Amino acid sequence: MKIRILKHELNESIQHVSKAISSRTTIPILTGIKLEVNFQGMTLTASDTDISIQAFIPAEDHDKQIVQIDRPGSVVLPAKFFVEIIKKLPSQEIEMEVKEGFQTLIRSGSTDIQMVGLDPEEFPVLPSIEEDQIIMIPGDLLKNMIKQTAFSISTNETSPILTGILWNLSDNQFKFVATDRHRLASRTAVLDSADNIRFSNIVISGKTLNELSKIIPDQNTMIEIVVADNQVLFKIDRILFYSRILDGTYPDTSKIIPTTYKTELVLDTKKLSDSIDRAYLLSREEKTNIVRLQTMEDGTIEISSSSSELGKVTEQLEVAKFEGDPLRISFNSKYMLDVLKVVESQQLHIGFTGAMSPIIIKPLDDSQSLYLILPYRTTN
Amino acid sequence: MKIRILKHELNESIQHVSKAISSRTTIPILTGIKLEVNFQGMTLTASDTDISIQAFIPAEDHDKQIVQIDRPGSVVLPAKFFVEIIKKLPSQEIEMEVKEGFQTLIRSGSTDIQMVGLDPEEFPVLPSIEEDQIIMIPGDLLKNMIKQTAFSISTNETSPILTGILWNLSDNQFKFVATDRHRLASRTAVLDSADNIRFSNIVISGKTLNELSKIIPDQNTMIEIVVADNQVLFKIDRILFYSRILDGTYPDTSKIIPTTYKTELVLDTKKLSDSIDRAYLLSREEKTNIVRLQTMEDGTIEISSSSSELGKVTEQLEVAKFEGDPLRISFNSKYMLDVLKVVESQQLHIGFTGAMSPIIIKPLDDSQSLYLILPYRTTN
Repeated sequence: MKIRILKHELNESIQHVSKAISSRTTIPILTGIKLEVNFQGMTLTASDTDISIQAFIPAEDHDKQIVQIDRPGSVVLPAKFFVEIIKKLPSQEIEMEVKEGFQTLIRSGSTDIQMVGLDPEEFPVLPSIEEDQIIMIPGDLLKNMIKQTAFSISTNETSPILTGILWNLSDNQFKFVATDRHRLASRTAVLDSADNIRFSNIVISGKTLNELSKIIPDQNTMIEIVVADNQVLFKIDRILFYSRILDGTYPDTSKIIPTTYKTELVLDTKKLSDSIDRAYLLSREEKTNIVRLQTMEDGTIEISSSSSELGKVTEQLEVAKFEGDPLRISFNSKYMLDVLKVVESQQLHIGFTGAMSPIIIKPLDDSQSLYLILPYRTTN
Repeated sequence: MKIRILKHELNESIQHVSKAISSRTTIPILTGIKLEVNFQGMTLTASDTDISIQAFIPAEDHDKQIVQIDRPGSVVLPAKFFVEIIKKLPSQEIEMEVKEGFQTLIRSGSTDIQMVGLDPEEFPVLPSIEEDQIIMIPGDLLKNMIKQTAFSISTNETSPILTGILWNLSDNQFKFVATDRHRLASRTAVLDSADNIRFSNIVISGKTLNELSKIIPDQNTMIEIVVADNQVLFKIDRILFYSRILDGTYPDTSKIIPTTYKTELVLDTKKLSDSIDRAYLLSREEKTNIVRLQTMEDGTIEISSSSSELGKVTEQLEVAKFEGDPLRISFNSKYMLDVLKVVESQQLHIGFTGAMSPIIIKPLDDSQSLYLILPYRTTN
């Protein structure tokens, strides 16, 4: 392998694929990035066995030469050092040459680097995927669906299935669900192009989807998702992102979501968020995060938290609508703030079916999102 | 105590004094901020016994009312919660009232806070300082002198005196020295107004001076420094910053600084910095940070580092001047980068007296700074 390549193009692709590098891997070859050059361009691959990312840099793009190929070939280079050094090279052009024993020379300006390369034959082969079930989704929408559910996944590795986000698709309704048994987030979107496709119980690691989010470009790009037996493949421009599907059956969460309420509130999202944020500051010092919400006789609500050592915070909040029974309920303020951070509508609807039953939060102008928080059992 | 106060003025002063709060204190009263109100305004004090910071908020400033005093008084409030909650209060105006048992009511918009206050009589009294030795220094200059020396202090608590910066003043020459036995930084400034003042062996904690730096405003302010027996007091606008002087005798460092050189180089600061940064990336992976500098026959120099696992980086650098003997020397690249980060001149002079003797770095257009790095003894 002998090439010249533009630094910023190489750097961009390295940044993308390096998201698959795990710092905890025990398999030496997976600490590296595989480079493969043919006359079409360069392909970079990185993998931690759960995620694999591949990026392609074409030899030419819009008549501009990006990679000049003198000799095709391939090598695996140590990821951490490679990622950092390429970024800092002095010239916009980089020469790379793989010598005997995968010794790799990198030259840029007056900098000479010899890198110890590894045999690309040792690098795991990417899964081959049957491209039967393909859906298309705008990048912005996918990013949003991840952001609005991933915060509710479990971080507890003892129930691995709950560290994932559940995907279901039927009748063009694409639905994400995440829960850690104390709270739940769900988000549905209508897809135009999924008429004949349906799947259920596809569970993908929340951490993986957060990494995917970082690669999705800001400008609106259509993303192709291929759902296969035990892998999902995302095609984003010139990037292929493979993720393993988690083993196991996701619990049925539909039964715990109440459909009728005893008390209903409509509130300003920002004002509720600011109030709970102040009460949270105190509840956090108590390590409990417990905040109390109470409906008042004058039709307002009171948010409060207290700490024997520090004191008490009491917030008075006006409501746009209050229907049903008076209520006094305690919940984890951090969970509520997590929801309020991802809600985009100005007002939201909160439904209660009693002090011991799940709290249901829905954005007022959006029937596609639903958040659930279990209340705290408290003595006062 | 009963007052109304403008939120942003209170917040600014709280931010300043809270820098004296240590999260590790075992003395409960020192986890608090003391507020004292008289008809002139409010004084806030915080202390960790090494540092004490006091900020004054006048009742009126330029005919604008900042504090409206209904009843003077004082209280100590829990710092962490107080700092965070004041920032997040909903209205620009805050009401505060201290009730029986130092219970403190804070009201802003529709937020009500009850805070458990402590008895201000328990708060330590600030040291009384004899104001005999007073010097004036521009804030920018003081900040710079701290930045250009503090990185060389020792972080090893077994020789506490080296965790400080040594101050000397004589003949209007105000000098800072810091060393951790492997490197040294010194910076001198000429003061206009210190004709009759001289002191030596005043050592102030580098960490404390870094905290002080954060309080010095960006716009140019004259700072008054009062040097007393075991305390130094900095007066910055309406802030008083007290620091303890470290006990002990600072080692005499003058003898280790060579005055003649066997090899001298003049180099471009930015280019040297970029080259060493790249070599550092590799040397860091080896955990040694060792980089080699070698003069070449063609009058250039070569910077290199190597790692048996990863490879080798070689940098060719042109020099503006090269005088004396050929040289091959190894040093800690992190130490060199620390120096290059604070050097402001475009070119610098490096003097060597052999591969085992201290390396001396001086900015080319500035005779007031000097940096020393001890080389590594290496076999190759």
